[in-house]
Amino acid sequence: MTFTQSLAAAWQKNNSLLCVGLDPDPAKFPAHLKGKPDAIFEFCKSIADATADLVCCFKPQIAYFAAQRAEDQLEALIAHIHANHPGVPVILDAKRGDIGSTAEQYAVEIFERYQADAITVNPYMGKDSVDPYLAYPDKGVILLCRTSNPGGSDLQFLDVGGKKLYEHVAELVATKWNTTGQCALVVGATFPGEIARVREIVGDLPLLVPGIGAQGGDVEATLKAGRTATGTGLIINNSRAVLYAGKDENYAQASRQAALASRDLINRYR
Amino acid sequence: MTFTQSLAAAWQKNNSLLCVGLDPDPAKFPAHLKGKPDAIFEFCKSIADATADLVCCFKPQIAYFAAQRAEDQLEALIAHIHANHPGVPVILDAKRGDIGSTAEQYAVEIFERYQADAITVNPYMGKDSVDPYLAYPDKGVILLCRTSNPGGSDLQFLDVGGKKLYEHVAELVATKWNTTGQCALVVGATFPGEIARVREIVGDLPLLVPGIGAQGGDVEATLKAGRTATGTGLIINNSRAVLYAGKDENYAQASRQAALASRDLINRYR
Repeated sequence: MTFTQSLAAAWQKNNSLLCVGLDPDPAKFPAHLKGKPDAIFEFCKSIADATADLVCCFKPQIAYFAAQRAEDQLEALIAHIHANHPGVPVILDAKRGDIGSTAEQYAVEIFERYQADAITVNPYMGKDSVDPYLAYPDKGVILLCRTSNPGGSDLQFLDVGGKKLYEHVAELVATKWNTTGQCALVVGATFPGEIARVREIVGDLPLLVPGIGAQGGDVEATLKAGRTATGTGLIINNSRAVLYAGKDENYAQASRQAALASRDLINRYR
Repeated sequence: MTFTQSLAAAWQKNNSLLCVGLDPDPAKFPAHLKGKPDAIFEFCKSIADATADLVCCFKPQIAYFAAQRAEDQLEALIAHIHANHPGVPVILDAKRGDIGSTAEQYAVEIFERYQADAITVNPYMGKDSVDPYLAYPDKGVILLCRTSNPGGSDLQFLDVGGKKLYEHVAELVATKWNTTGQCALVVGATFPGEIARVREIVGDLPLLVPGIGAQGGDVEATLKAGRTATGTGLIINNSRAVLYAGKDENYAQASRQAALASRDLINRYR
């Protein structure tokens, strides 16, 4: 099954557009986990196990693992999710972007070593920097389009012949790069008008939407702007508000409650 | 000493603008190294030791290490270079780019874990995605501007109000982002006219120039386009033609000869 098919199946089966972002910051872990050698794996695994029936996918952010020398725990985490929650795809948020020969190495890293189902990729270096990921026909390739951070508009808002750069990227991906149906786009939740604009350009292409929760994006406006006719098409990421909902030994249960509330809030506006 | 100061000192001391790119591909290793558990470290270390007096810096490409689960060998390699070749800075080619909180994690990875002296960064997400690297005052931050791959022009050549996107990035970095003197730019060797254009925009800002050698960039044209008044200002990367110059047990010596020839060819046009 391809990433796109798994995602569509998970939207239905779990009745959810919620993606739980796994950004493990040991400083925020419950006290009983601190100092344990596999704390990162343990923390993420418990939250994945507690929320797997409420999400359409998981999205580990590789920077948090790399900063802690925890590549082995990331491998173990993704293997655990695949073994215990089949049908819930894993997006590895890595935002890679390099020339073809180097991108081939990153593709080995992300798809073969970590066995991720999809990767986030930066479009600045153009089509041939994306091809090595597309060469894995079952995998998803999620390109940065409009990001939700304050500096996102520094380049993405530049006018490139009557449209903004992010609109051009959306058009390029939808009309030229997505020949195999493997592509999706990152569009931040901070600006619902821009989600609507991207949706208009790309038809039913899946949109990964960070910025709900800690970054302040509005759920109702995001859904109205980005949902497709079938009430899907969105992967709405929530990291911190789910991960750090609890502070004691029952943290995974607290995360489940937060994920449930987040999923249900999203579903009110589908 | 800051990255910029180390670089300037190495330009002088080694009379060299050459950067040896460390992109270790085990399939291309000499036969006697194949299958050894620390072959990646061994290969790169031998080449670094054989060329350290001929270069202005080294540039390991992290993708090659990550694809082989060799993060520990990358750590050991950079530690070895620092211990044995002080004064030769190490650029970790990682082309990271993410929101501030994630970029902080990458900065820990690149500067604290790997102890690199500089990082390559993708500008697509804007200034606040770059700030966490600039927060390390001794470190260099080398932003992608114009890349040498075929798809480089897909976005970088877009017209943004009478100039191309890569020119705008050059201007943005030179006039707004580089307030602390830590920045440099990546400008591919494939198009010397564009190196000249960037040099015109950015004054004496250091330019990292990949694309000499395997990618076919012309040394004379590159130097004429990009050197500063003092005959420096360039970090000219050569990876494959140096790394894989030899195929037997004397490979490091062959790499030294290739690096020497490359340095001297560059120096003819300074």
